[in-house]
Amino acid sequence: MPVFKAEKLHRVGMAIFQGAGASESEAKQVMELLIEANLVGHDSHGVIRIPTYIDLVLKGKTKLGAKIEVVRESPTTALVNGNWGLGQIVARQTMNLAIEKARENDVGIVSTFNCNHIGRMADYALMAVEQDMIGYCCVNATPQVVPFGGMQRMFNQSPLGWAIPAGEEPPFVLDISASVSAGGKIAVARAKGEKLPPGYIIDKDGNPSTDPEDYYRGGAGLPMGGPVGYKGFGLAMVVDITAGILSGRGAAYLGGERGQGVFQMAINIGAFRPISEFKKEMDDLLRAVKNSKVAPGFKEILLPGEPERRTKQQRLVEGIDVPQRTWDELVQTGKKVSLDINEYT
Amino acid sequence: MPVFKAEKLHRVGMAIFQGAGASESEAKQVMELLIEANLVGHDSHGVIRIPTYIDLVLKGKTKLGAKIEVVRESPTTALVNGNWGLGQIVARQTMNLAIEKARENDVGIVSTFNCNHIGRMADYALMAVEQDMIGYCCVNATPQVVPFGGMQRMFNQSPLGWAIPAGEEPPFVLDISASVSAGGKIAVARAKGEKLPPGYIIDKDGNPSTDPEDYYRGGAGLPMGGPVGYKGFGLAMVVDITAGILSGRGAAYLGGERGQGVFQMAINIGAFRPISEFKKEMDDLLRAVKNSKVAPGFKEILLPGEPERRTKQQRLVEGIDVPQRTWDELVQTGKKVSLDINEYT
Repeated sequence: MPVFKAEKLHRVGMAIFQGAGASESEAKQVMELLIEANLVGHDSHGVIRIPTYIDLVLKGKTKLGAKIEVVRESPTTALVNGNWGLGQIVARQTMNLAIEKARENDVGIVSTFNCNHIGRMADYALMAVEQDMIGYCCVNATPQVVPFGGMQRMFNQSPLGWAIPAGEEPPFVLDISASVSAGGKIAVARAKGEKLPPGYIIDKDGNPSTDPEDYYRGGAGLPMGGPVGYKGFGLAMVVDITAGILSGRGAAYLGGERGQGVFQMAINIGAFRPISEFKKEMDDLLRAVKNSKVAPGFKEILLPGEPERRTKQQRLVEGIDVPQRTWDELVQTGKKVSLDINEYT
Repeated sequence: MPVFKAEKLHRVGMAIFQGAGASESEAKQVMELLIEANLVGHDSHGVIRIPTYIDLVLKGKTKLGAKIEVVRESPTTALVNGNWGLGQIVARQTMNLAIEKARENDVGIVSTFNCNHIGRMADYALMAVEQDMIGYCCVNATPQVVPFGGMQRMFNQSPLGWAIPAGEEPPFVLDISASVSAGGKIAVARAKGEKLPPGYIIDKDGNPSTDPEDYYRGGAGLPMGGPVGYKGFGLAMVVDITAGILSGRGAAYLGGERGQGVFQMAINIGAFRPISEFKKEMDDLLRAVKNSKVAPGFKEILLPGEPERRTKQQRLVEGIDVPQRTWDELVQTGKKVSLDINEYT
């Protein structure tokens, strides 16, 4: 597999997006988040997405240069029409809007429709952390996960992200889905020809399966929780409703062509506690958890966000492995916009 | 086991609380929620709590007639000192405060410390639903659950509740914990001498156990998710931070004597969508999920809140089974406040 330093891969992506007509600023905003996903180890949300994003641009479904439109607004809330701009660009603007509202009024909630794939939830939640706020972001999208006890795809994986500032410690970052597995992990197992762990998916007849192919042959993902999967199911519904129905995107089961419905929230910590006290207690908690006793069979307790920070340190030095198939697709995508991307590596 | 109609059990509880010095209004507010918990089938949060509540009153740790105190406030937020009033009374007032703020400013968040056990999260979330709002409530409390990969009690079960209005359908209600099992379910298994399902708890050495006694012999509860238990762990941390650190109660690991830290939020749906459209889409979603294809091994898809509604219908007619041991404790508690509770049945 070709290995690239982040800067090189960034340059390749910049060239492709600009080749497709994106402004330098648009290309940069999207590429920063895609490369960040690769760096932290979530390759499913990294440069592997470029071919799809560019195809949508070339088909005119993603509108370059689109301006977001605030449809309805109050000092604490906004409903935003994303006008089918690049998802990352829309979601950065809407998160900034939530943050501005929280700066003025302590809480900001922004709900967005007509929005393309925005990538990882943590990226937006972390924007609030930089302002000493608690950040939250969730989306609904294509239905791929069944209700607890069901076998029909009704909900998206229902990703949700929280970020909360600490003092000397890195911020708390949680980026999970309400399903057992993100869709990307199933795709990775399929690409590698590997089995999935039990409990991730069912086949088209509703029976448990460990074969990722079954997921693509009419099967579906399961809500998290295993025997208490009604919990993951319930959380998926909360995500579906707050991101999908509140925004007007519509619930996930109505179909994937509606893009992503987005719910973003920023909460000003200073409205409740002096930020220095809050951060001190965050440090204490993070350290207490990290240093608490490890169970048999585990080497250490990994805080949410810790695996990602480690992978990033490593990949910043060693570079990002791009699977040959992904690289070939990037080469093809380059050709579509009349580029030889090898010139940019 | 003695079986009582809800009204009788309510009368017994009223007598005990008033016998301990509570005003009629205080007794009524607490008893309504305890009886509601019994009616919907969550006996762990029903009249079984009365002896503990009364003991705290008699010891002076719970202050009857306490007034909540708003320590810090903005149009959208409040930090509240519960002054150790009865938890249900404090949490009703603080949720009402969140709702008032959401009525004026579309979002209200109230964070509360010095608060006793407030009971079920759904009760408060549902208060928002009556005002066409989305309601959310979570608390932290005594540490009883380990981090993923850990064996030390660091987090509470971390209960959280969401309620969202529908139109013709009953509202969406989710009341879950971020751990596999609520503490009450472990207590019930212990009382019945039954084994727990695998994956609920570990023993004092950090090994998996199905013996509920192990939980009380230095063991602990596990975060939800099984092999992806880092998800339940992450959600527990969010609850611990938003309910515990934001309120000043402190994180769960600091100990149980700090009571419950409470985070309550109300979001005005009308700020985003016309409420009639929102409710119509909620009905559509709830019906689509309910009527979606059932997986092998399941009889039907149960919506969040549906088991509770069914149990309530049944118990309103058939009455509430009170285990003999619980009844005996209620009799003893009655004696402490110079009452023969049998006179009230």
